[in-house]
Amino acid sequence: MSNGLLKGKKGIIFGALNSQSIAWKVAEKAHEQGAEIVLTNAPIAMRMGEIKELGEKIGATIIPADATSIEDLENLITKSMEILGGKIDFILHSIGMSVNVRKGNHYTNENYDYTLKGLDISALSFHKVMQTAMKFDAMSEWGSIVALTYIASQRVFPDYNDMADNKSYLESVARSFGYHYGIKKHVRVNTISQSPTVTTAGSGVKGFDSFIDYADQMSPLGNASADDCANYTVTLFSDLTKYVTMQNLYHDGGYSNTGVTQKVIDKFGSAS
Amino acid sequence: MSNGLLKGKKGIIFGALNSQSIAWKVAEKAHEQGAEIVLTNAPIAMRMGEIKELGEKIGATIIPADATSIEDLENLITKSMEILGGKIDFILHSIGMSVNVRKGNHYTNENYDYTLKGLDISALSFHKVMQTAMKFDAMSEWGSIVALTYIASQRVFPDYNDMADNKSYLESVARSFGYHYGIKKHVRVNTISQSPTVTTAGSGVKGFDSFIDYADQMSPLGNASADDCANYTVTLFSDLTKYVTMQNLYHDGGYSNTGVTQKVIDKFGSAS
Amino acid sequence: MSNGLLKGKKGIIFGALNSQSIAWKVAEKAHEQGAEIVLTNAPIAMRMGEIKELGEKIGATIIPADATSIEDLENLITKSMEILGGKIDFILHSIGMSVNVRKGNHYTNENYDYTLKGLDISALSFHKVMQTAMKFDAMSEWGSIVALTYIASQRVFPDYNDMADNKSYLESVARSFGYHYGIKKHVRVNTISQSPTVTTAGSGVKGFDSFIDYADQMSPLGNASADDCANYTVTLFSDLTKYVTMQNLYHDGGYSNTGVTQKVIDKFGSAS
Amino acid sequence: MSNGLLKGKKGIIFGALNSQSIAWKVAEKAHEQGAEIVLTNAPIAMRMGEIKELGEKIGATIIPADATSIEDLENLITKSMEILGGKIDFILHSIGMSVNVRKGNHYTNENYDYTLKGLDISALSFHKVMQTAMKFDAMSEWGSIVALTYIASQRVFPDYNDMADNKSYLESVARSFGYHYGIKKHVRVNTISQSPTVTTAGSGVKGFDSFIDYADQMSPLGNASADDCANYTVTLFSDLTKYVTMQNLYHDGGYSNTGVTQKVIDKFGSAS
Repeated sequence: MSNGLLKGKKGIIFGALNSQSIAWKVAEKAHEQGAEIVLTNAPIAMRMGEIKELGEKIGATIIPADATSIEDLENLITKSMEILGGKIDFILHSIGMSVNVRKGNHYTNENYDYTLKGLDISALSFHKVMQTAMKFDAMSEWGSIVALTYIASQRVFPDYNDMADNKSYLESVARSFGYHYGIKKHVRVNTISQSPTVTTAGSGVKGFDSFIDYADQMSPLGNASADDCANYTVTLFSDLTKYVTMQNLYHDGGYSNTGVTQKVIDKFGSAS
Repeated sequence: MSNGLLKGKKGIIFGALNSQSIAWKVAEKAHEQGAEIVLTNAPIAMRMGEIKELGEKIGATIIPADATSIEDLENLITKSMEILGGKIDFILHSIGMSVNVRKGNHYTNENYDYTLKGLDISALSFHKVMQTAMKFDAMSEWGSIVALTYIASQRVFPDYNDMADNKSYLESVARSFGYHYGIKKHVRVNTISQSPTVTTAGSGVKGFDSFIDYADQMSPLGNASADDCANYTVTLFSDLTKYVTMQNLYHDGGYSNTGVTQKVIDKFGSAS
Repeated sequence: MSNGLLKGKKGIIFGALNSQSIAWKVAEKAHEQGAEIVLTNAPIAMRMGEIKELGEKIGATIIPADATSIEDLENLITKSMEILGGKIDFILHSIGMSVNVRKGNHYTNENYDYTLKGLDISALSFHKVMQTAMKFDAMSEWGSIVALTYIASQRVFPDYNDMADNKSYLESVARSFGYHYGIKKHVRVNTISQSPTVTTAGSGVKGFDSFIDYADQMSPLGNASADDCANYTVTLFSDLTKYVTMQNLYHDGGYSNTGVTQKVIDKFGSAS
Repeated sequence: MSNGLLKGKKGIIFGALNSQSIAWKVAEKAHEQGAEIVLTNAPIAMRMGEIKELGEKIGATIIPADATSIEDLENLITKSMEILGGKIDFILHSIGMSVNVRKGNHYTNENYDYTLKGLDISALSFHKVMQTAMKFDAMSEWGSIVALTYIASQRVFPDYNDMADNKSYLESVARSFGYHYGIKKHVRVNTISQSPTVTTAGSGVKGFDSFIDYADQMSPLGNASADDCANYTVTLFSDLTKYVTMQNLYHDGGYSNTGVTQKVIDKFGSAS
C-alpha cells in the first residue's frame, strides 16, 4: 500500500542481494512510496545475485560498486545524480561481512588482516559513502542516511564475533558524521538496530536457527521481519522524521529493553 | 499534506491545551492523515483552554477527564469506544506538571505531598490510562501508545527539578507496560523524548529562554518544533512502525548524542 | 582482610535485616576497613531482625527509623552525628518493598495506593534521606552516598513488577540529588545495580530460584554475591573513587552487557 | 598512602610517557599499593619519554613494545612473566593516537590509510594485547584488564575526530573480549571513561584549553585529575571489584549524566 511518502525522492540502496535481503525490501517499499532508486552492490555479490530482476521490477538502474573503493563510490555517486536527475534524498547502507567469521576464526584468535578487511567492508565503507557524497555535494538538504546494525554492538552475542566491534564502529560513524552533515546540510544519519533476520548474510552465523528462536521468544512482539524493517526505514527516509538524527533505533519487537520473558525463564525450571 | 497514514484509525489524545501544545499539533496531523479522534484534558485545564475550537476544526468529541482519576478514565475509555465505534488504535499521553516547580520549591527542599501529586499527574497517570484500556480491552491489536518525555529523565537539568524523576518513572512505565501489552495484544508503547519546546507547559520553567537557546545551539539540526514532533508521532501511530516498542525515542535534532558543538565551545574562549 | 580503606570514616547503613542482607555485609566490611557505623532499619523490620547481634559485633549503635518519615530521619541524622562525633562520610540505602508484589497484584492490575506506598518506601525515601542530611549539613565534604538497585529499572523483568518503576525513580534521584550535592559539598551519589541476590527481600519474588539460575548462566563471571557487593560498596565509600558520581554501576559479573551466553542458547536447540 | 590493595600483584602498564600521563600515575599508585610492575611503551615514544626515571623510582623493568606488533607483544608478555615470576594480575592499556588528527584532516576528509593506522594503534592494539595474553595463558584467574577511553565514543565532540570511532571500537573490544576472558579465566575487562585530562596526548587536540574549561564547568565535581584516575584504576585492579566486568565506567565528576549546569547556562543569557 502506498502513501506517497517518498514521492519525488531519489535514493541509493546498497546491499540488495536477493529477495530475502532487507535492502531488497527497502527498495521495493521505497519505490512503492514514490521514490526513484539506484541499486548498487559489490561486483562480486552481483554475480551471485538476482539484483537485475529487482532493477527491472522497480525501474532502477544498477551500478556496481565496491563500497570500500573510493573510485567506485565516486563513480556511483556522480552517475546516480545524472541518472536520477539531481541530488540524492536518501541512502541505505546494508553491508556487512566478517572475514574472521567466514574463515572460522574464534574471536580470541583473530587474524588481524581479516579483522581490518571486515571493518573496511562493514563499517568504514559507511564513512566512505558519506565522505564521497559530501565531497560531491550530492545530498539534498534534509536528506536521510540509514545504516543497518545489530544489538551485538552494545551487548555480547559470542557468535557474532568481530562483527560486534564493526557495528560499534559503524554506529559511532553514524553519530560523528551525522553531526557534521547535520550542521552542514541538515542531512540526518541514523542506524536501525534490527532483530536477527533470516537472510543470506545472517545465515552464515553459527547456530543461527536456535538464536533466531531465542530472540523471538525474548521479544514481546516477536522478531521483526525484513518487510517490517523496510516499512520502518521508509519512515526514516520521509519528511515526517526530519529531526531524528545521530540515533541508534531499535526495531526489534521490544527485545532490547526486555530483560527476560516468561517463555525464556520457563526453560530454567526444575531441571536446571 | 496527507498520506492517509492513519486512514480508518481511531485515537485518544490527552493534553491539547492550546495551539502551541504538541498534543494539539498531533491531533491536527492525525486528523489530516485520516484518523478519527477523541480529545481529552483535565476539566480544570479545559476551562482555560481553547480545546473546543480544535474539536470543531477536526470534528472531534471532547471528553473531560482527570488522568489521575480511574473513574474519569473509565468513562473516557468506554465513551470513546462508543463515539468512535470500535476499539482504539492509538493514544497520546502529553501530560506533566510538578507542583514543587509551581510552588518554587528547590529540588533539595521538596514538599513530598507535592512530589507525589506531581508524580501521579505526570507519570502514574500513564499507567492508569493503560491499565484502564486493558481492563476494558479497548486497544486494537497492534495499537500504538505514545507518551512525551524529556531527556532530563536521563541527565540532570537542574531547573527541571522533580519532573526529571517523574519522567524516569514514566519511561519505565512505558517499558514495563509495553512488555505486558505487547505480549497480550501486540500493542506497542513508546516515549518520545522531545527537544525543549515553547509551550504553555514549558514556559513555566525558570530561565527557559536561555535554555531553549542553549539546546538549539547544542543540536546539529537545531531544536525540533512541535510541528515536527507531531509528524514523528504520526509515524509511530502508523502501521509502518509495528515492531518499535518499549523504546525511548529522541526527537531532538541530534542533541542527545552531541557532547558539544563548536557554537557552544566558542563561549568558553579567552574570557573564561 | 582490612586495608584501612575507611579508617576514621563515619557512616550510616540502612537495611541490614539479617546476615543474608547486603547491608549487613557492607556494615561488616566497612567496620573491618576502619569505619564507625550507625545501623538503622524500620522499627517493624527490626522486630523481626537480628540486627542487634550485628550491632554488638561491630560496636554500632542502632537507631530505628522509618525511612519514609521525615521526623524519624531527622532524629536519625542528628543522633548519628552526636554518636559518631561529627559529620557523616557515607550512607548506604538498601531499602525496597512493593506492596503490589506482596499482595499479589499483577503489574497490569495495580492498586495505586499500594503503588505510591511502595514508591515512598523504595525510592522517595532515598530523596528524603539526602534532603534531611543536607538540611542538617550532615555530610562531610567528598562524602559518598550509595543506593542499591537492580537492572529491572532499565529492562523489563516481568515478575519484578512495579519495583522496576521504583528503581528507575531511585536512579533518577541519585542523578538529580547527586548534581546538587556535588556542587554544594562535593558529595557523590551513586547506585549499584547488583546481580539478583538470595536475601530475605529477594526471596519474596515469584520464581526466584529459576531466575537466579538464569541470571547466573547469563553472566560470564556468574552472579555476584552479597559479599562481593559489600567489597565493591567499600571502594565507593573510600577516597579512591572521589570523582565517580551520578552513576548507575553494574556489579553483576558482566550480565548487563551480555546479550546471550552459549549456556543459555543451548536451551534453544532442537527441541524448541 | 598505601592500603596494600595490590600486595603481591603483578602488572603490565602501557603508555607511561611522562609524569603527566595517567599511566605514569597508575604505575606509581599501583607500586605504592604493593604491586610489582613491568612498564612498556612504543620504542619511538620511549626515546622521547622519561620512562626510565619512573622505572628506577618504582623498581620496574621497562620492555619496549609496539602494541600493534604481535611479535613485540609476545616478547613483552613472556618476558614479563619471567621478570615478575608468574602470571599477570592486571594490565593497563593507555594508548591512543589518530594520524588524521596529527595531519590536520577534518573528520569529513579522512585519509583512510591514516584511519586504519590510528585504529590499529588506539583500539585493535587492545585486542592484540588480550589475544596474546590468552595465547600464553598469561593472566591469573580473576585478573583485571583496564583500558582508558573517553565519552566521545558515545556522544560527538567534533574535534575528537576519528578517535571517537576508535574509542567506540575499543569499548566494544572490552565487552567482547571480556565475555570470553570472563568465561575462560574469570578475567575481567573494563574501560574507564575519564574526564578530559591535560597530558601530552590530550594537548594535541585543537582548542583543548577551552574544552577543558567547558568540561570542568559541566561537571558537578569538576574534572577528575590524572591522580584521581589512578586511584580509581587501582580499585579496579584490586580484589574488591571482582564482579565488575564488561563495563564502561565514567570517572568524570558527574559530567556524563549532567545535561547542563547553571554555570554553563549562564553563558546563554541576555546577549544570545
